[in-house]
Amino acid sequence: MTYCLAIRVDEGLVFASDSRTNAGADHISTHSKMHRFGGDGERTLTLLSSGNLATSQGVVTRIRRDIRSSARINLTNVEDLQAAAEYVGGISTEEQEKHRGVRPGANTEEFVPEASFILGGQIHGGRPGIEQIYPEGNFVRASISTPYLQIGEVKYGKPILDRIITRRTTLDAALKCALVSMDSTMRSNATVGPPVEYHVYRTDTFSPGTHHLLEEDDEYLLGLRRMWAENIRTAFENLPSAPVAVEDDTTVQIPRRRP
Amino acid sequence: MTYCLAIRVDEGLVFASDSRTNAGADHISTHSKMHRFGGDGERTLTLLSSGNLATSQGVVTRIRRDIRSSARINLTNVEDLQAAAEYVGGISTEEQEKHRGVRPGANTEEFVPEASFILGGQIHGGRPGIEQIYPEGNFVRASISTPYLQIGEVKYGKPILDRIITRRTTLDAALKCALVSMDSTMRSNATVGPPVEYHVYRTDTFSPGTHHLLEEDDEYLLGLRRMWAENIRTAFENLPSAPVAVEDDTTVQIPRRRP
Repeated sequence: MTYCLAIRVDEGLVFASDSRTNAGADHISTHSKMHRFGGDGERTLTLLSSGNLATSQGVVTRIRRDIRSSARINLTNVEDLQAAAEYVGGISTEEQEKHRGVRPGANTEEFVPEASFILGGQIHGGRPGIEQIYPEGNFVRASISTPYLQIGEVKYGKPILDRIITRRTTLDAALKCALVSMDSTMRSNATVGPPVEYHVYRTDTFSPGTHHLLEEDDEYLLGLRRMWAENIRTAFENLPSAPVAVEDDTTVQIPRRRP
Repeated sequence: MTYCLAIRVDEGLVFASDSRTNAGADHISTHSKMHRFGGDGERTLTLLSSGNLATSQGVVTRIRRDIRSSARINLTNVEDLQAAAEYVGGISTEEQEKHRGVRPGANTEEFVPEASFILGGQIHGGRPGIEQIYPEGNFVRASISTPYLQIGEVKYGKPILDRIITRRTTLDAALKCALVSMDSTMRSNATVGPPVEYHVYRTDTFSPGTHHLLEEDDEYLLGLRRMWAENIRTAFENLPSAPVAVEDDTTVQIPRRRP
């Protein structure tokens, strides 16, 4: 499994991804799911991937090859984020098709080459944005009311994003929230795991931004996990009890039918 | 969708369920998913249901009919919780089979009569327990290390259970935690909704316990939701920032390639 997320606030963009991949519970390894392009003062693009590893690696290889060969359409010359997402969506469906039906007689229903992506960044002339690219190649962008996107194991880490993130959240808080969301997911799903990568981009800098990789024993990550657990416990303890549990103490014990 | 959960602590059992059912997003209604049996001083059993509503209603009808007709095996005479779970599992698979293949030519793949259950309580001579019954009729019990069970939309409400519940949690705290778990789920999945029902049973009382139904505008539920949101926000704000987001301020802006 995988957990990747991207947050878009007025101050900029935050991307975060785990690094665990598995083909069955007995085949777990570590692969980066974050790929950065540009950061040259004119554009910066970050791609997060989830799903079939062969497909997502194929897509990244193809993106890099197209850049090197200065293909007519590539990530260094597309006009805007939507064009970039359309380009990646197209490559993704092509990569998936390549491996379908290659082995006649193989159980094609079990073979799932699907991959999902989040592509975000800023291209000169446009505003920063994040787009989610589905296996079918179509894509949606984050909105003002839902200023984040997730792919992979999305449910465990969603509540904290819903509670904290608005477009006016600071970059600082958005990064902290992304890491808490990642921590909750890693705690509940063993196939999502460190190292955790994150990338922070500040609006209109067109710079590479800040990229960091937090290993399993990273002091900040461990501290965050411990403090979050403590703070959640305090938050819980400070809630009022349901009045009814107490009434239960007064429940008259009914005499046993068969003593 | 549905969210039901049961918690087993030393002091007793807590059951909670939402009441929203839907057959498509345009067909939403309200049905209780909690059914209580016994509470006669000798045994008390509570059944939570999730999945196909026709199947789960069929199962409950059959359980009640078997009790009324004093069938050889019914919930008022089974020896222990495992026998009770086996009985319910058997009925459930029978109910599911009844409606499979009834309409030849109908798309049987789309018709999913599956239902899952949690059955818990205490029968004289045994300890209190909770069992999860799968659509196949087999079942597992909660353990000391995982003293809760969930059916339906389980992911959003799981992290808080993992953080709070141990066997030594008080009944009071377990109930509060069940309601917070329910609130998180209702907040994130629109097809899980009020009224929220809960049932609290204190170990060795063999009483009906306390049963309550919280409507959407219930003051305690609204207060819990508001305070939990506030407390989570405080818990989040008290976390240390990732040191790296600040470094980003010093990122040198790279001159634009194409100005």
